[in-house]
Amino acid sequence: MGKGIVSQDLPGIGTRYDVDLGSRSQRLSIVVRRDGVRDLYIFTSGSDDPVAVIELTDEQARKVGALLVGTYFAD
Amino acid sequence: MGKGIVSQDLPGIGTRYDVDLGSRSQRLSIVVRRDGVRDLYIFTSGSDDPVAVIELTDEQARKVGALLVGTYFAD
Repeated sequence: MGKGIVSQDLPGIGTRYDVDLGSRSQRLSIVVRRDGVRDLYIFTSGSDDPVAVIELTDEQARKVGALLVGTYFAD
Repeated sequence: MGKGIVSQDLPGIGTRYDVDLGSRSQRLSIVVRRDGVRDLYIFTSGSDDPVAVIELTDEQARKVGALLVGTYFAD
């Protein structure tokens, strides 16, 4: 599971996870903050600057995560 | 769990999920394809055109999902 994920402690903030998507021009980083907020950084331009940053509350992150993992089922 | 998620069948392709992030200018859609590939569409510009599209294999989607749900633990 840990393959392709590099984590880095961000003292006082939380943990940053860089997910290798097998392409330099398509990367994704997630910062899990101590307070539960997750920041999603999307890199698609090959640059070190993200093309998009999405801030997710704990609840939102769980929803999006469930969709991605495949455990989301509509009511 | 279903609150804030609108799903739509895409005949022959899979299912599209629109996740409400509480802001018109910050939206996220996930297309779960029948073959397991997930397409992640990020909208941060307030426009109907995504600023980024990320294609995730089933394995990659599970990794990213685990990070977001909070069930990822390093080896």
